[in-house]
Amino acid sequence: MNQTASPPPHFDDAFRARLLELFGWRRDVRRFRSDPLPPGTLERLIEVACLAPSVGLSQPWRFVIVEDARRRQAVLDNFERCNAEALNAYSGDLSIRYARLKLAGLREAPCHLAVFADRESAAGHGLGRRTMPEMAEYSTVTAVYSLWLAARAEGIGMGWVSILDPAVVAAALDLPSAWRFIGYFCLGYPQIEDDSPELERAGWERRRPAVDRILRR
Amino acid sequence: MNQTASPPPHFDDAFRARLLELFGWRRDVRRFRSDPLPPGTLERLIEVACLAPSVGLSQPWRFVIVEDARRRQAVLDNFERCNAEALNAYSGDLSIRYARLKLAGLREAPCHLAVFADRESAAGHGLGRRTMPEMAEYSTVTAVYSLWLAARAEGIGMGWVSILDPAVVAAALDLPSAWRFIGYFCLGYPQIEDDSPELERAGWERRRPAVDRILRR
Repeated sequence: MNQTASPPPHFDDAFRARLLELFGWRRDVRRFRSDPLPPGTLERLIEVACLAPSVGLSQPWRFVIVEDARRRQAVLDNFERCNAEALNAYSGDLSIRYARLKLAGLREAPCHLAVFADRESAAGHGLGRRTMPEMAEYSTVTAVYSLWLAARAEGIGMGWVSILDPAVVAAALDLPSAWRFIGYFCLGYPQIEDDSPELERAGWERRRPAVDRILRR
Repeated sequence: MNQTASPPPHFDDAFRARLLELFGWRRDVRRFRSDPLPPGTLERLIEVACLAPSVGLSQPWRFVIVEDARRRQAVLDNFERCNAEALNAYSGDLSIRYARLKLAGLREAPCHLAVFADRESAAGHGLGRRTMPEMAEYSTVTAVYSLWLAARAEGIGMGWVSILDPAVVAAALDLPSAWRFIGYFCLGYPQIEDDSPELERAGWERRRPAVDRILRR
């Protein structure tokens, strides 16, 4: 019996159609308005994130709300260094196209959130992590994605910044080096809304049909 | 401008309340009815999964629909071996409690799906993966979780089996060894619906308040 003794919800066609729109209109946002989110918004979204599945109920996610200006600057500095190195690794046309991309909204986004996974978490007593210790990270990613979807349903955009050196970010935030860095996230109201990825609109890459990603055995 | 020129959707309070119910009532299901899903269901859910974010638009997810009885048996055999080894690693009360848990529905679930991430995918031209190659796996996890939520919105349950040896699964399915195993998933109609995790109901672990997972910097 469920804890609250409430009956299971019935999801209807109308809800499923809206859910599909949510998946389709969720974007990785890099162009934010600078106005702040209402107080408590991020904390509320993190509560939703904690409804995500986790291996052995280990809840290995660690959410770090980054507010200190110097720490934010350290992360931005690291992004700019890593992004310059990435640009140098391209040549020819790809180099020109890469240089034109806007890949993070670190300067404008009102909210910065770093997320880590703690593989050493005692919660869950190691269940399901023996052959796949990386399940701690995978569980944390489902929490991140819950937060992303819940944010979008409120008109709030989120962008995932991975062009960073995980060790530098952990040091800049004074966190245990054993924690695995999952990502650094910008949140705020988006300047535009769209149903196609910015990288597709910019001609960097195109979406492939799902059927090309399916095998049968 | 968006591709379809349709206006951005507006998500209202009613939708958000239902979305919160979806997050709250999504479960890791291990007790399935054995009746099949309607033909084409899994393929349709995989299409939804492909709306997930992916680093550099690399779409590194690889979905393997497992139908062959011998391959399914090989995966089940591996689960039973890994689960026995896990049980042996516990002692005392935890051992007794672990032995009582039902941790997979591999025998009953009508649908088996293995998911892998291809780090070598040329799509995306490596963007965002230079300092964090594990972004291929994280992107794939967001696709898995999309599929999970979309399935639950149709009353279909999904369970994530991680008590497996990734190399054995890849070999049993005759897949490139370079692909990273993300998880093996059972899908079907659940025997029960609940808003609390089975591991919590069984007394294995309890959910912690979100506030315990938040730090400020």
